Amino acid sequence: MALEAEKAIQGSMQRHDLLIRDILLFAEREHGEREIVTLTHEGEMRSTYSDVARRARLMSSAFERLGIRQGERIGTLMTNSQWHFELYYGVACMGGVCHTINPRLFVEQLAYIINHAGDRILCVDAAYLELIEPISAEIAHHVTTIVIIGQPSDDGIATRLGARFAVIDYEDLLATGSVDYSWPALDEDMPSSLCYTSGTTGNPKGVLYSHRSTVIHAYGANLKDAFGLGSRDVVLPLVPMFHANCWAFPYLAPMVGAKLILSQKSLMDGETITRLINREKVTFSVAVPTIWAALLRYLRASGETIASVQRLQVGGAACPFPIVQAFDKDYGIAVTHGWGMTELSPIGVINQPKPAMYDWPADERLAHQRKQGRGICGIDMKIVDAAGKDIPRDGKTSGRLMTRGHWVVDTYFGHDRSSLEDGWFDTGDISTIDSDGYMQIIDRAKDVVKSGGEWISSVELEQIAMSIPGIDEAAVIPARHPKWDERPLLIAVRSAGSSIACEDVLAGFDGKIAKWWTPDDVIFVEELPHTATGKVLKTALREIYQDHFTNNVMQSSN
Amino acid sequence: MALEAEKAIQGSMQRHDLLIRDILLFAEREHGEREIVTLTHEGEMRSTYSDVARRARLMSSAFERLGIRQGERIGTLMTNSQWHFELYYGVACMGGVCHTINPRLFVEQLAYIINHAGDRILCVDAAYLELIEPISAEIAHHVTTIVIIGQPSDDGIATRLGARFAVIDYEDLLATGSVDYSWPALDEDMPSSLCYTSGTTGNPKGVLYSHRSTVIHAYGANLKDAFGLGSRDVVLPLVPMFHANCWAFPYLAPMVGAKLILSQKSLMDGETITRLINREKVTFSVAVPTIWAALLRYLRASGETIASVQRLQVGGAACPFPIVQAFDKDYGIAVTHGWGMTELSPIGVINQPKPAMYDWPADERLAHQRKQGRGICGIDMKIVDAAGKDIPRDGKTSGRLMTRGHWVVDTYFGHDRSSLEDGWFDTGDISTIDSDGYMQIIDRAKDVVKSGGEWISSVELEQIAMSIPGIDEAAVIPARHPKWDERPLLIAVRSAGSSIACEDVLAGFDGKIAKWWTPDDVIFVEELPHTATGKVLKTALREIYQDHFTNNVMQSSN
Repeated sequence: MALEAEKAIQGSMQRHDLLIRDILLFAEREHGEREIVTLTHEGEMRSTYSDVARRARLMSSAFERLGIRQGERIGTLMTNSQWHFELYYGVACMGGVCHTINPRLFVEQLAYIINHAGDRILCVDAAYLELIEPISAEIAHHVTTIVIIGQPSDDGIATRLGARFAVIDYEDLLATGSVDYSWPALDEDMPSSLCYTSGTTGNPKGVLYSHRSTVIHAYGANLKDAFGLGSRDVVLPLVPMFHANCWAFPYLAPMVGAKLILSQKSLMDGETITRLINREKVTFSVAVPTIWAALLRYLRASGETIASVQRLQVGGAACPFPIVQAFDKDYGIAVTHGWGMTELSPIGVINQPKPAMYDWPADERLAHQRKQGRGICGIDMKIVDAAGKDIPRDGKTSGRLMTRGHWVVDTYFGHDRSSLEDGWFDTGDISTIDSDGYMQIIDRAKDVVKSGGEWISSVELEQIAMSIPGIDEAAVIPARHPKWDERPLLIAVRSAGSSIACEDVLAGFDGKIAKWWTPDDVIFVEELPHTATGKVLKTALREIYQDHFTNNVMQSSN
Repeated sequence: MALEAEKAIQGSMQRHDLLIRDILLFAEREHGEREIVTLTHEGEMRSTYSDVARRARLMSSAFERLGIRQGERIGTLMTNSQWHFELYYGVACMGGVCHTINPRLFVEQLAYIINHAGDRILCVDAAYLELIEPISAEIAHHVTTIVIIGQPSDDGIATRLGARFAVIDYEDLLATGSVDYSWPALDEDMPSSLCYTSGTTGNPKGVLYSHRSTVIHAYGANLKDAFGLGSRDVVLPLVPMFHANCWAFPYLAPMVGAKLILSQKSLMDGETITRLINREKVTFSVAVPTIWAALLRYLRASGETIASVQRLQVGGAACPFPIVQAFDKDYGIAVTHGWGMTELSPIGVINQPKPAMYDWPADERLAHQRKQGRGICGIDMKIVDAAGKDIPRDGKTSGRLMTRGHWVVDTYFGHDRSSLEDGWFDTGDISTIDSDGYMQIIDRAKDVVKSGGEWISSVELEQIAMSIPGIDEAAVIPARHPKWDERPLLIAVRSAGSSIACEDVLAGFDGKIAKWWTPDDVIFVEELPHTATGKVLKTALREIYQDHFTNNVMQSSN
């Protein structure tokens, strides 16, 4: 009767793979009636988890009939919609890889990404077909089929693309699927989706998520101190589904039966967003800070409210403090910071106060919420110095931010070597971590100014510069310096009609930072160069201006 | 540059095992200052996640020095305390199996379980040493060492046990551990803990949890519509740590940095619980319904409040409706049902209203909350008929409740064969599931009365019987019947001083159930037999009374 100690070395629990399929099957089974609403270019479309699960199965079945095998990539060039949601699941659950492509990239980058991924099929919103046409010869080596979502305004484009590809309407493709299809039991380590990051240097790099990483990430992101969704939530992601998994909301919402609102149209103005929020009773939304600024302006001007909202999540950049304050004090809404990246599925940290902070004076608590946030169980972070040595969590000393965890990249898609350093992924950011565990980004590592062995944050200087009246846009780059190695150089665009002088700009830094952080010079330009996603292209600025101080010195010594 | 479609078949994400270690390391790193408070027999002890993590490492190191190898079992005979918490982690994180033993079992069962598990070491609260002494010869085959927590009141007991075992004080053992120890990277499928279920028939059966099942269960149970803890929560589990993982709270709280209150003493009276809640600002507690009844009585009598509490979770049995109503209406506190079992880690379903239900009339919504609850992403359930065929979710038709998922048992510890039926675990319960997905337990399958092809719930009859004035306790068993196969027989204990008659008891069922559900007879007894955990021992009653109707029939026909 007694067992030998050596006999049982495995747990005796059921062993199921962690599969994306099971998120949607859960939503279908337990929350089948819950809605997915799409604001389309033409109007509105209402559907349910039950319906999209059925359609996602048709989609999988149709792809199998087209000969798509497990592990093959299917690209999407689409905005947010029920159809994109169906593809997230229809592709991944059959064992394919859903490769979401950013339509805002330059065409050369699009061609590079599609070819590097080896996409077999492209699913394209009708409005984006014109992006495909100029690169059709280039991508025809891999791509065999174009699936069109919606009705092209250019009648002839489908015919023209038909010369190189099989072209089929999305609904016609679905109609070829079998209603009896059911999703296979896959290995959880199989890839499920693929997303490229467009850096400011080099070629875009792909992050290949697995079923396992996606499901664990969804559980982690749905913890209360992260996004913490429940079935009562109505979620409106105003971040695109082609970027970083749309902050995982297409997984988080069905995992708990939350209602999901998707918009094909890019919603930017406060009035439209306010109406949508109030009509659908939105509780949770996520967007970049400019959208929350627009929403606040509209609410103030109109006197309207958005009573259903509990949380506005900030993505992409830090939200200006007055906006956080106003939503908190005037509307009782938490504007919550977070930080993530494509390589992190994307969630790294979320800024929810710790218990003791609720007893702090309101302004102090809000000020602390400017930091990017604290960790979630499942992902670990630390900061290290140039030599890789750990830096203490003192909130002051900054270092390279390293991450490790279930949903962090190891090796970029198609690369031979892991990107890790002793098992940790270098985020490329310079940050601090305070003793409460809150991480704050100081700068991108490549943009930080290394002056006399100390680091100066280009981001902080830029924020101050842009708050100076007469300055519209500003960038700070490290320029070589004979004595200090590097010194900050400010490159600025004057506001229309302004003729602000260099000295006045530099005076604007007084009292806001340590004196030695102040840029050594200001160069005024007509406009700054930008990447496809709207970031300032600092590499171009450095190429032109990096010798600004050494040239000057040489001139003055000559 | 382009990749072949076949080249990349694995996701490129980091691959870490899902380990219990990482829950406590997270709490130590991100919430190191958060408290674990123990109400000890002598008073109170306050500690932090930082401190218990350090001590759990000492514990692991000390066990390794004692020669414990991975996969070996270490038993605990302990109530709730920081020390028990340290053992949950100190044993599992080194690769051992923490076998929590129910000290309320009969000594024969204790001996059986300890030997069947093959425990090498037993960690015993000083007060429970007397349970070990009578079985020491029997268990000495496996057990080599007794670790004593606290100071025995019987001075000689340690010496007497020392004749058979190495006996060591808990703190002395910790002192042998190394502060430089760190936990190994284990395989996530390795076992972590073991818990036996004491059924009413046969020998107890062990459920061997794995690191993976435990961690996924903790993520699932921490979803908002399950327990949804966050760092602001202060959790008081009034369920024992030796039973079904204490509803997983020792994992759920550190996973999010919630404060945890543990009590060595069994807290039963409303006043003590009210004081504790108000002193520690408890937000979330879980207990059996009798405790919530006692709490409500005290609050009403004293006029005190428990303003910090947001949720009282019900475990073990259904909470009487008036208690749920009173907490909701008078105190604004949700009394939430749930259902689980040892074989489910333990969480099966939790009853949180769906969004539409918040618009129902309050009493209708509350009435619906009497059901056990709805599913959580990660576990699936269905009901089937006797032949194993699926039964629709209509809220009326009942069937055998089957479960499947990441945290559901497959094979009992030491058994050769899986317990599953086509991949599903039969819970042994008869239930309905309604169209909203809410499951309601009707009866244990072995207790249901099968009358003329229809099922009668013994549980429902017992609840009605116990609400009849003059009846203290009641049990219903299926007794054989020549015409109907089985008919319900009520066995009841009269209240002190009562002489209620059979007819009056049966009249008490009028209008509360279908007429044909009414028991055919009542037998009055002095007391009912109970199991060690306090359940009525129906097997004993059936042995005595199962031929009650057939004997009667024979007598009357003679």
